[in-house]
Amino acid sequence: MIPLDSDLILKSLDFENASIPGQKRVERYLADVRGSFADTQAFEAALARGNPLLYAVAGVEPPDGPGQLHYGLGILYPGKIGNEYYLTKGHYHSVRECAEVYIGLKGKGAMLLEDGTTGESRMVSLGEKEVVYVPGNTAHRTVNTGNEPLVYVGVYPSNAGHDYGSIAQNNFRMVIVEEGGKPVMKPRST
Amino acid sequence: MIPLDSDLILKSLDFENASIPGQKRVERYLADVRGSFADTQAFEAALARGNPLLYAVAGVEPPDGPGQLHYGLGILYPGKIGNEYYLTKGHYHSVRECAEVYIGLKGKGAMLLEDGTTGESRMVSLGEKEVVYVPGNTAHRTVNTGNEPLVYVGVYPSNAGHDYGSIAQNNFRMVIVEEGGKPVMKPRST
Repeated sequence: MIPLDSDLILKSLDFENASIPGQKRVERYLADVRGSFADTQAFEAALARGNPLLYAVAGVEPPDGPGQLHYGLGILYPGKIGNEYYLTKGHYHSVRECAEVYIGLKGKGAMLLEDGTTGESRMVSLGEKEVVYVPGNTAHRTVNTGNEPLVYVGVYPSNAGHDYGSIAQNNFRMVIVEEGGKPVMKPRST
Repeated sequence: MIPLDSDLILKSLDFENASIPGQKRVERYLADVRGSFADTQAFEAALARGNPLLYAVAGVEPPDGPGQLHYGLGILYPGKIGNEYYLTKGHYHSVRECAEVYIGLKGKGAMLLEDGTTGESRMVSLGEKEVVYVPGNTAHRTVNTGNEPLVYVGVYPSNAGHDYGSIAQNNFRMVIVEEGGKPVMKPRST
């Protein structure tokens, strides 16, 4: 367990720089999410024009142990590829049963949830003052449906781990796209 | 685990009413925290003048299970008894090893942490854009050191439980008081 004098006990969240000072920060650029967007032609066209930063995640991950927690600050920038909103790769937890609690701090977005057993999907709003409970065995992806950066914190059991491979292989069954000016969840066209 | 169509998946946080609509809300008035403040004379004098609401907590606590989480929205109002800031009763987790992550959403406050084994204490700032990691086996109390309500979310393992009894019996070794206009942690006078 973390000792009381550890600098991990108190962290400040830097929204502007999408960081937690003193902590590692992972950046994902457009080129890093190849295969995530449904419209591959629009993706390649966008990438030919530039390789923008889509999102960044800064994590506080003290040593594992029963009852311990990890958390991360996520910032996802606004934009679209075709009519599909900028998104995170999405993941299951390596320990499938582990839940995660997302707390929206700023901006306007949504989460795409997919049940790992039934394939059932749900689009859930994630914005300021909204909390999304991601149940165990549920793939989850965040999208930015607004015009400013979406900022959120996710808290998860320390042993959860991240399984990106399953998503990379099968992607999500559904996409979240803009239709008539608002987010709609619909089946990925094949 | 929560099914994807559960209304627990998405909750909004109502700062003004200190509530999560649809969820149970616990209120603690001054009379409920008898024994918590060091200055008992000031406490009784204040109680004779009225019994204000000190804090409220609304929780989302789906069924327990390995890897599952609970969370609560806390709102702690500003004020002092003598020079000691308004506070929550404070607790250990019944499953002592369980950690908790507090995310400050609004206002200005602090947490008083006390190691359950060594008795070592630490005062940690908790305010907007600040995250406090409460390690396992650590008693924790929140205080409001500002002039407006302090709003925060706490996330904890679903099996953590709340042990208020140990605090009720022994209280914290330290108090957080105002000295020279700012919060200071000092030993409880006996």
